[in-house]
Amino acid sequence: MKHTITFLPDNITATVDKGENLLNAAAQAGVYIHAYCGGDGVCGKCKVIVDKGEVRSDKANLKQEDWDKGYRLACLSTVESDLEITVPEMTTKSGKALKRKPKTTRTISAKALDSLIGSWEVEPPVSKLYLELQRPTLEDNISDMDRVMRGIKQAFPDHTGGEPSYDHPELIKYLPAVLRESDWKITLLLLRRNQGGFRIIDVEAGDTTSKLYGLAVDIGTTTCSGVLVDLSNGEILAESSGYNGQISCGEDVISRIVYANRPGGLKGLQEKVVGTINTIIEEICRELIISPTDIAYMMAAGNTIMSHLLLGLDPKYLRESPYVPSVSRFPLTKAAELGIHAHPSMRLFLYPCIASYVGGDIVAGVHACQMAKSDKVSLFIDIGTNGEIVVGNQDWMVCAACSAGPAFEGGGIRYGMRASSGAIENFQIHPETFDPMIVTIDRIKPSGICGSGLISIVAELLENGVIDQQGKFSHNLDTPRIRQGIDGWEYVLAWPVIR
Amino acid sequence: MKHTITFLPDNITATVDKGENLLNAAAQAGVYIHAYCGGDGVCGKCKVIVDKGEVRSDKANLKQEDWDKGYRLACLSTVESDLEITVPEMTTKSGKALKRKPKTTRTISAKALDSLIGSWEVEPPVSKLYLELQRPTLEDNISDMDRVMRGIKQAFPDHTGGEPSYDHPELIKYLPAVLRESDWKITLLLLRRNQGGFRIIDVEAGDTTSKLYGLAVDIGTTTCSGVLVDLSNGEILAESSGYNGQISCGEDVISRIVYANRPGGLKGLQEKVVGTINTIIEEICRELIISPTDIAYMMAAGNTIMSHLLLGLDPKYLRESPYVPSVSRFPLTKAAELGIHAHPSMRLFLYPCIASYVGGDIVAGVHACQMAKSDKVSLFIDIGTNGEIVVGNQDWMVCAACSAGPAFEGGGIRYGMRASSGAIENFQIHPETFDPMIVTIDRIKPSGICGSGLISIVAELLENGVIDQQGKFSHNLDTPRIRQGIDGWEYVLAWPVIR
Repeated sequence: MKHTITFLPDNITATVDKGENLLNAAAQAGVYIHAYCGGDGVCGKCKVIVDKGEVRSDKANLKQEDWDKGYRLACLSTVESDLEITVPEMTTKSGKALKRKPKTTRTISAKALDSLIGSWEVEPPVSKLYLELQRPTLEDNISDMDRVMRGIKQAFPDHTGGEPSYDHPELIKYLPAVLRESDWKITLLLLRRNQGGFRIIDVEAGDTTSKLYGLAVDIGTTTCSGVLVDLSNGEILAESSGYNGQISCGEDVISRIVYANRPGGLKGLQEKVVGTINTIIEEICRELIISPTDIAYMMAAGNTIMSHLLLGLDPKYLRESPYVPSVSRFPLTKAAELGIHAHPSMRLFLYPCIASYVGGDIVAGVHACQMAKSDKVSLFIDIGTNGEIVVGNQDWMVCAACSAGPAFEGGGIRYGMRASSGAIENFQIHPETFDPMIVTIDRIKPSGICGSGLISIVAELLENGVIDQQGKFSHNLDTPRIRQGIDGWEYVLAWPVIR
Repeated sequence: MKHTITFLPDNITATVDKGENLLNAAAQAGVYIHAYCGGDGVCGKCKVIVDKGEVRSDKANLKQEDWDKGYRLACLSTVESDLEITVPEMTTKSGKALKRKPKTTRTISAKALDSLIGSWEVEPPVSKLYLELQRPTLEDNISDMDRVMRGIKQAFPDHTGGEPSYDHPELIKYLPAVLRESDWKITLLLLRRNQGGFRIIDVEAGDTTSKLYGLAVDIGTTTCSGVLVDLSNGEILAESSGYNGQISCGEDVISRIVYANRPGGLKGLQEKVVGTINTIIEEICRELIISPTDIAYMMAAGNTIMSHLLLGLDPKYLRESPYVPSVSRFPLTKAAELGIHAHPSMRLFLYPCIASYVGGDIVAGVHACQMAKSDKVSLFIDIGTNGEIVVGNQDWMVCAACSAGPAFEGGGIRYGMRASSGAIENFQIHPETFDPMIVTIDRIKPSGICGSGLISIVAELLENGVIDQQGKFSHNLDTPRIRQGIDGWEYVLAWPVIR
């Protein structure tokens, strides 16, 4: 469910999900709200007035008389209806209201991307089918598998894709026991086949149709992150991420390729990234109290080198002219065969690559934002350890790629960190006081700055004249307080990024 | 190439392959030729006169004057053209020619079955494709696999089955190296898919299209035997057989099922039959000087219990009412996954079963003799450790099965043996003298009697009045010499079979 918020006096409107945090909503809409503590409810600065509509809010250290006047702490409020919110004017020491110039840019947090993307239909490649089969008798003693096939045929009388295939020899080994333990009431896990019809990849006792989980993994050169999705509705149930275990073998893709050609190097690199994925799976499963074998499908995207290493393919030809990948469209793979802790039948879909240095990660991004469906020309930028830029629309698309280094994932930045809890991911500056508005992931006390935080900070510093187009600090700003602030920023921000 | 032989004075004609042994040809045609030594060229009894046509023959111990008169030893002669052969009359001690009554039945050796079956087209499920690909350049640096796919598309411009799938992750691991080692000249091994199109299951450097081997294995409860077939023309290149290693776990299928339910029993039984198959593969490969990984496809047939055990499926429900197999139509399986020494991509086709006690062996037999294509009603009997009888035609078919014991594979028979070199497989009695005509496999000195030899012997004894319809010996025969012979037979033949 979506609600519309109007922020006064700037008269900026934003559409957000019901339950969204109000400080987040303001930050995403580019509305400056005084907020120092990252959204922790400690500083008490982010007071707003709820003119119309309803928020759910925690009083915390707010004075009773402010509460009664309709003041709420934005960081402790969630959106419950359409809202009209007044952000109080800041005043100078002399009591004069500070003017705010209208924003020319907007920053968008990673989580707000879906509003940009538009809607998706949930149509996963796996589905479940519950069957209550007739028990065999002497008059009807066809084989167990034929009985299952008959049940499917009865469930889909109009199905035209032919009799399903099935995983073997695994599936038929446990089918008879599952049928008899469950008194012939079973749930089949079906995989849609490219050529039509489907394939039975698992059978479970009883009705398990309510549990259908998919795992999406971004295999970055520096960071891997995974989300577990409820495939019945597309909802994200849990997330986890970690540094790619291959980092110890080299920070960039070229050094990984070099490492892969050492004796045992390729195998080691494959095991390391698989280990990272397994840790992500473990964390997600521990959080949701499910088993890794409950995961029915896995999609992953990575650059061409990461994809090759995950599959155990020698990446050496990627580095030598004419830069040829072994394979660019990866077939469905049984993840367990790669060493991933998963059901033996769970399939891994790996996003296809375009070329040696335009990988599945950028393809996945282009796919997700649906720019290939639009007649408008879009610009898509994916900055990780490798950076790619795509421009195009439904008719054409061009891409350039370069090495960006690990800065955006915390590497080489004094207070840099990955985009995990406590990372500053959104940031605004009051245009006159230079007071910061800091929003962290999970709205707790800031513990560092992640990649989107860095971009947000640099953008705000540039827009407010604190740094120039070359990324140099403007030392001619005259307010002592601002000067002090700038010295602080110089200290915090990493030169490798800005310069 | 086929040739017609006319045997005089009985005027029996037979059509045989060029190169067939003349003694064999006579035995298969039901023509009695005096032959004691099994076809070894030692006894010198099997003299015939070549009236017309040409044989290739060894003179051995034949007198020069006989040779000059056109006498040849049938056991040392091979058919080179259409022939007219006179079999000399036998004479009594008094010099009187012995009359021969015309035969009412004919025995057929296993190898002559193909004459009964009719013709088959050679259309194997695997094929090879030789490609000379263009080397990649900076202007044309698609992935290795895409280059292969493009080559296939150019080779089959009219192909409608869609882009081939391929085995993974194995194939893509070695594809890049094979392409570069072979200077982009490769041979693909293609597997025809049920749903149309094909799947790449192997890639080899250079042009290997002349080598395409298939292995057929009969998995009997007592005996396993395999033949290696040249899939380009259907020719059998080598054969091997051995006792099923499971025998140590029980002689019949019921005791195997019982054994399978011991701890580790199922795994042990699977390993034992796989070990037997591996020995057969080793022997065949050693004979032909090829590698097991050169075998491109494998077809096997066995009864339902043997099929379950080979796949590692628990057979216990086969023994309990209502006698339900786990699976009756087996999917293509990678043989290496079962432990068979073979190329990792080699597929095993296992003939489908009809029911718990009507297995893939009988289906394979019915398929091979093509009785399901005929409007005439045929009777098909497969007697192994289990015996099955099928009667029917293209419209209907019924089958009954029973336990036959291991007698036909040498079990419980004093001089019983498997159908290997030296086994008596064809036998006739001179109707008046009761002199035997003995033909052994490979025409060497007899070392025992195999199943078809037993049937041949019993049929001859019955037809000539030595035993009666109940299988009892007729003790009222009056010639002392014959009496002596019969006593010998009583000693040799196994009562469990005849009574």
